[in-house]
Amino acid sequence: MRLEKYQIDEHNDKLAQQHKRKFEFLAQDVQGVEEIIQKLIKFQIAIPSWALGTGGTRFGRFSGGGEPRNLEEKMEDIGLLHQLNQSSGAISLHIPWDIPENAASVKALAAQYGLKFDAVNSNTFQDQPNQQHSYKFGSLQHVDKAVRKQAIEHNIEVIRHGVELGSDSLTVWLADGSSFPGQLNFRNAFNNTLESLQEIYAALPDNWKVFVEYKAFEPNFYSMSVGDWGQSLLYANKLGSKAYTLVDLGHHLPNANIEQIVALLLNEGKLGGFHFNDSKYGDDDLTTGSIKPYQLFLIFNELVEGMDAKGMDHATGLGWMIDASHNIKDPLEDLLQSVEAIMMAYTQALLVDKKALEQARLENDVVRCQEILQHAFRTDVRAIVAEARLRSNAALNPVQLYRDLKVRESLVAGRGQKTVATGL
Amino acid sequence: MRLEKYQIDEHNDKLAQQHKRKFEFLAQDVQGVEEIIQKLIKFQIAIPSWALGTGGTRFGRFSGGGEPRNLEEKMEDIGLLHQLNQSSGAISLHIPWDIPENAASVKALAAQYGLKFDAVNSNTFQDQPNQQHSYKFGSLQHVDKAVRKQAIEHNIEVIRHGVELGSDSLTVWLADGSSFPGQLNFRNAFNNTLESLQEIYAALPDNWKVFVEYKAFEPNFYSMSVGDWGQSLLYANKLGSKAYTLVDLGHHLPNANIEQIVALLLNEGKLGGFHFNDSKYGDDDLTTGSIKPYQLFLIFNELVEGMDAKGMDHATGLGWMIDASHNIKDPLEDLLQSVEAIMMAYTQALLVDKKALEQARLENDVVRCQEILQHAFRTDVRAIVAEARLRSNAALNPVQLYRDLKVRESLVAGRGQKTVATGL
Amino acid sequence: MRLEKYQIDEHNDKLAQQHKRKFEFLAQDVQGVEEIIQKLIKFQIAIPSWALGTGGTRFGRFSGGGEPRNLEEKMEDIGLLHQLNQSSGAISLHIPWDIPENAASVKALAAQYGLKFDAVNSNTFQDQPNQQHSYKFGSLQHVDKAVRKQAIEHNIEVIRHGVELGSDSLTVWLADGSSFPGQLNFRNAFNNTLESLQEIYAALPDNWKVFVEYKAFEPNFYSMSVGDWGQSLLYANKLGSKAYTLVDLGHHLPNANIEQIVALLLNEGKLGGFHFNDSKYGDDDLTTGSIKPYQLFLIFNELVEGMDAKGMDHATGLGWMIDASHNIKDPLEDLLQSVEAIMMAYTQALLVDKKALEQARLENDVVRCQEILQHAFRTDVRAIVAEARLRSNAALNPVQLYRDLKVRESLVAGRGQKTVATGL
Amino acid sequence: MRLEKYQIDEHNDKLAQQHKRKFEFLAQDVQGVEEIIQKLIKFQIAIPSWALGTGGTRFGRFSGGGEPRNLEEKMEDIGLLHQLNQSSGAISLHIPWDIPENAASVKALAAQYGLKFDAVNSNTFQDQPNQQHSYKFGSLQHVDKAVRKQAIEHNIEVIRHGVELGSDSLTVWLADGSSFPGQLNFRNAFNNTLESLQEIYAALPDNWKVFVEYKAFEPNFYSMSVGDWGQSLLYANKLGSKAYTLVDLGHHLPNANIEQIVALLLNEGKLGGFHFNDSKYGDDDLTTGSIKPYQLFLIFNELVEGMDAKGMDHATGLGWMIDASHNIKDPLEDLLQSVEAIMMAYTQALLVDKKALEQARLENDVVRCQEILQHAFRTDVRAIVAEARLRSNAALNPVQLYRDLKVRESLVAGRGQKTVATGL
Repeated sequence: MRLEKYQIDEHNDKLAQQHKRKFEFLAQDVQGVEEIIQKLIKFQIAIPSWALGTGGTRFGRFSGGGEPRNLEEKMEDIGLLHQLNQSSGAISLHIPWDIPENAASVKALAAQYGLKFDAVNSNTFQDQPNQQHSYKFGSLQHVDKAVRKQAIEHNIEVIRHGVELGSDSLTVWLADGSSFPGQLNFRNAFNNTLESLQEIYAALPDNWKVFVEYKAFEPNFYSMSVGDWGQSLLYANKLGSKAYTLVDLGHHLPNANIEQIVALLLNEGKLGGFHFNDSKYGDDDLTTGSIKPYQLFLIFNELVEGMDAKGMDHATGLGWMIDASHNIKDPLEDLLQSVEAIMMAYTQALLVDKKALEQARLENDVVRCQEILQHAFRTDVRAIVAEARLRSNAALNPVQLYRDLKVRESLVAGRGQKTVATGL
Repeated sequence: MRLEKYQIDEHNDKLAQQHKRKFEFLAQDVQGVEEIIQKLIKFQIAIPSWALGTGGTRFGRFSGGGEPRNLEEKMEDIGLLHQLNQSSGAISLHIPWDIPENAASVKALAAQYGLKFDAVNSNTFQDQPNQQHSYKFGSLQHVDKAVRKQAIEHNIEVIRHGVELGSDSLTVWLADGSSFPGQLNFRNAFNNTLESLQEIYAALPDNWKVFVEYKAFEPNFYSMSVGDWGQSLLYANKLGSKAYTLVDLGHHLPNANIEQIVALLLNEGKLGGFHFNDSKYGDDDLTTGSIKPYQLFLIFNELVEGMDAKGMDHATGLGWMIDASHNIKDPLEDLLQSVEAIMMAYTQALLVDKKALEQARLENDVVRCQEILQHAFRTDVRAIVAEARLRSNAALNPVQLYRDLKVRESLVAGRGQKTVATGL
Repeated sequence: MRLEKYQIDEHNDKLAQQHKRKFEFLAQDVQGVEEIIQKLIKFQIAIPSWALGTGGTRFGRFSGGGEPRNLEEKMEDIGLLHQLNQSSGAISLHIPWDIPENAASVKALAAQYGLKFDAVNSNTFQDQPNQQHSYKFGSLQHVDKAVRKQAIEHNIEVIRHGVELGSDSLTVWLADGSSFPGQLNFRNAFNNTLESLQEIYAALPDNWKVFVEYKAFEPNFYSMSVGDWGQSLLYANKLGSKAYTLVDLGHHLPNANIEQIVALLLNEGKLGGFHFNDSKYGDDDLTTGSIKPYQLFLIFNELVEGMDAKGMDHATGLGWMIDASHNIKDPLEDLLQSVEAIMMAYTQALLVDKKALEQARLENDVVRCQEILQHAFRTDVRAIVAEARLRSNAALNPVQLYRDLKVRESLVAGRGQKTVATGL
Repeated sequence: MRLEKYQIDEHNDKLAQQHKRKFEFLAQDVQGVEEIIQKLIKFQIAIPSWALGTGGTRFGRFSGGGEPRNLEEKMEDIGLLHQLNQSSGAISLHIPWDIPENAASVKALAAQYGLKFDAVNSNTFQDQPNQQHSYKFGSLQHVDKAVRKQAIEHNIEVIRHGVELGSDSLTVWLADGSSFPGQLNFRNAFNNTLESLQEIYAALPDNWKVFVEYKAFEPNFYSMSVGDWGQSLLYANKLGSKAYTLVDLGHHLPNANIEQIVALLLNEGKLGGFHFNDSKYGDDDLTTGSIKPYQLFLIFNELVEGMDAKGMDHATGLGWMIDASHNIKDPLEDLLQSVEAIMMAYTQALLVDKKALEQARLENDVVRCQEILQHAFRTDVRAIVAEARLRSNAALNPVQLYRDLKVRESLVAGRGQKTVATGL
């Protein structure tokens, strides 16, 4: 299913007047609104292939209908999202859930949808049928060299798929760790993991990056072998200049100050990628911005500030990806809400009066620092984000158009009620 | 598979001398050791039918072999455990995973294994095939009366099964809640849940109890409709004298003082049951005593003290059950370790010099309070627990005997490598 | 120091045009904006007398200058705040820090400033010079009846002071608890506390309320004798119809869902008062809205919804108070920021389209529920709050006027640089 | 006050028979018990000078009596502790609370008590009277170079004092951070802190170490400029080979796996020192081993394993220090309990059958790993620890002897009831 241009135009026309009023009101106050809009237009957030189906928990999964049954249908769904918001122009593949049988045709299809291939993701947290060794006790950390070797080769295989598709980065998320005190020799686990990562690193093409993702807990419940940013940075530093840390918003201990982590990693030149979602308790994988929108803004504030300080391009300097689980919402609507929240936080961060903020900091004027930040956050920037969409031929209100066009109903009609997409 | 008496005897004979030395050393110091042993012999911990297979997380499950394929095999496994430790003489069924087709023959089989039927558990957190209404948005809390009715009827059906088998309590654990701010009208959710529980309560036989279990989060990630002991107690108080709160060790927010909750619920006469496991982050469902053995002891200290104060029998006053998930250990070994840890904590609690402790409290002698408690905890009570097993014709070292007899290998031989038990 | 009307007028005149433009833009979209403004004008937040000086931590205190040296100067400061925002028309006294020597003259002074006397607060968490018994091991929970009696009498004394001043509620916050396992018999601690509260309750005038505040930890680090809302509600229910639970935003375990607690307490008719502040880790006592503004909005959403459902008046139905510590900001500026954040959250909650929200809930349309809530939150309501101030003769931008008039400098000039206000 | 040898002997004689029986029972089972005892005898834990008085919270302090009024009396107290347990043979000074006016006489006094000078501690978290610049907004991180310079010079001054006394390490704990979003430019704060540390590092004598302590929160409540082990390690690595990370048990986010952090830091050769205490919620500074004794054991298990792997001497390889606050216990009794808990955990760690554990790990035999670890933890090692004391001419039961000799009463008689020691 693809939207016709007239469908978007009709939608936009209906909302045009109201939008115009709001945008013009805002534009009067916001300095450099044109520049902001240009940045928004360029900013693209990759959609992971596994986010298009209904997620679940260990207690069960309540599938929706019309889920994509294969890679082509996943690309179709992301293509739809991208038509709606023109901000989702990339797909992040997961191997082996999405092995592209024919890379050339997959690339061609992606081009039709205007999609790039973002980071490819390996999977050593599940056993696949006919797999020789089990990952029950870890993969890159495993005490048995043969298991490590299998996991290393899988990662190299993933790189190969990525190269074929034109991706240029690998995300390694490890479930490795332990669930009981005593189970692991932490030192050996670290050193094994490092050695394994070094072999994968050696197979990276010159222009590639590898992102070492960390996570505080789950599925292991005592220790994780890449458990926090400190560990991830240790690996990345030992690996070399193509290795970076990847931050997933849900992968921290309670109360962690993620924005500070982001700032420090940027300071070290070692922040590589970002996984968006939201959470209250653990890796809840909820819609980005649904629980802690102010935290999201504060993180973007550090991202913008830190990337500017390092001369990094906002759109291409880091890998941006949503990584969520859609247990009770329509996955496509959920993704639209997440992208909207991200674009808003980014816009608000661009609105911050950095010069005034630095001045207030120099004066230890904490009250003013807060006023400056919150002025940006309290500003209703929706019309700016919508204007960026309007200029990219996307919908002023993507969720509304999605519903008006009965997209989900069409997908169900085409694919069936009982499809189950691969993924969590 | 059943153990022969001689197998246990041989095992015990081999360890007898060493055990005798340790027990006699201990017995010299421990006042009332005989009374303690009698209490230990009476103390039985129910095994939930779903704990006999390999558990998993949303990221995957790594099955072991020889898992029980039906209710009869589950009872066989618990029968084995009970032969090994004589402390697992009860089974807790989960409906619909364990619908007893023929109650009479199931009861007869249980009698052969020396097992009683503990609390029966309903399930409204998953959809079953051919179920009319979905629990995707809750069950007893649901905005749609028809869904609530279906869930109520399921619970009443569970009671019926329980009655047939001779159980006398129902555990209601609700996954109900919400994952996003705004999703739920909390007031309506509470009142709907209460009304539903009242209908279930009305169907309880006179001699039955209903346990209202609470949980802080998962599978809902924003709110849970029975989220903490305060909510559970509210329901229990509104329901009536047959309704009680059930405490699961893994169902709390970080840093919660569970032992205080236990004491307060006993003080209110409203503690009904207990689910044992251990955890570091959330509902990790790890082996009891594997992460926080001191906390387990402190909880038992409150249980013993509070039950004594209320004149409750330790063995029968509350429903005792393990509720864990065995993701990487052999489930039967894991359960043996859990029971051992529980028996140790119970023994240590019995060792506490309550008179001296109360005196120290009256004097605000905090140092001595700690010395008294920790004296009990630091005492190596394993020989006392083992002596209780010896006198019950169980094994001095259950895990060792289980391994020596190659029980798992036999189960795999009999049932196959690729069986998957129902459950999480 | 009192502001002159012309000072406020001049300030407002300067900002009038810009404000008018923003307000009119908003008013076009917001239904019932007039009604909202009337509610805002009525809504008053009490300032605690101890919040006017610089706070500190156990590691030290960095005093600012010009702190109020006595009750009269504290009222002067609150009078100033109230002139600036016309939303701080009440003072909450703490005894013994603020014993009014001459109630009549204190009342007269308050009337001059337009201030009411909100809840009076007792203090049994510190020893006062010449106090007979120490609260080192608790007050209302104490094992020694004499200590409990002293604490009870102190509370009754506080009520007497309150009656003289025209207050009609008592807030009891207890530091009681224990810092080590074993230290306390939880049951006795609960029952002693209850008995003590009952004696205090018996001394309450007919038209008074007592608020039982709870706190998860600090200054006791193992257990608190009123540790969570469940315990507070137990006390309140056992005490009677004049007893209520008081919620302080910083008094919860990590990740607690405070808005659900608020909704449930309202449902039970037992929410009595509210202490505003913000926090990331514990009882950090930061400026309200500075860390989790969305949570603040969600709480107000429940407050508005729940109070409306019970027919409670927003302004008078609950006791509203800020309870924060101003360690690094000017206390008066900090309080202005807190009040602003509260008024914004209240306004946003009033903006929520409740009918549409309930409809979406009935349809389990979680996406729409979120859209409806976040539409209200994303709306920039500052101009509405400012308009309410304008109509009350307060300042359009209180912090700015405070700075422009160099209020702090005047206070320092009048009171000195090295004053230290009583309090934490 | 000094104990006479005969007092200790009499005490030991009374308990000798009972002790002998227990020790001999244990010695029969424990392999290498003599070697363990020798290690225990060598193992010394430094007492910080500020731990000898009653601590407090921001809500108040309840002083006990007989607190040391100056450095000499603090040394006297530690001398007493050391006589009682012969495991507290070092003192850790805090400047400016303990500026040694006459280093030579202080050294001589220490020698009399058998005490060494452990790490010296600087203080830039409080303002001292007559201090030129305030640390209200940080010290080594401060935006103002003059403030940083003052803090640097203070640290260098502390080194000078340490050199005079024969200490060879400096502990830098920074309260630096921020309490509000926006307050700090994280990057600048990090870089300023690093630059400041580099200047201090340059002033370190060749044989000295500097320990960079981290803390997650308090007294700053939004960010800490050395907030976790990752940050501390970054600083230590950038500083050079004399810089190390210091772990304080209470300085982590909820649920952190501290034992893994310890193992990783040892693996990097960057663990330098250790601050013992215990906690449930935050930096509660409770008696070591009073809340989570199993965690303490697990940490020691990593310490022993990791130090052995690196060929480090247990007694001298790291700086061992208690860092607690004694709010409701007699400080000296509290310290005796802490040292006892540490010695027990160390003994249990020495008991672990490392060979068998490594073998079980190689086989992924998680059940056995747990059995091996818990066998050591469940062993009642008190008699081994007591034997080590006996052989060092310390008391078999230090707390009991302390009480029998009415030490506190003597101290009160000598120093008075109302003394207040410097410190928190």
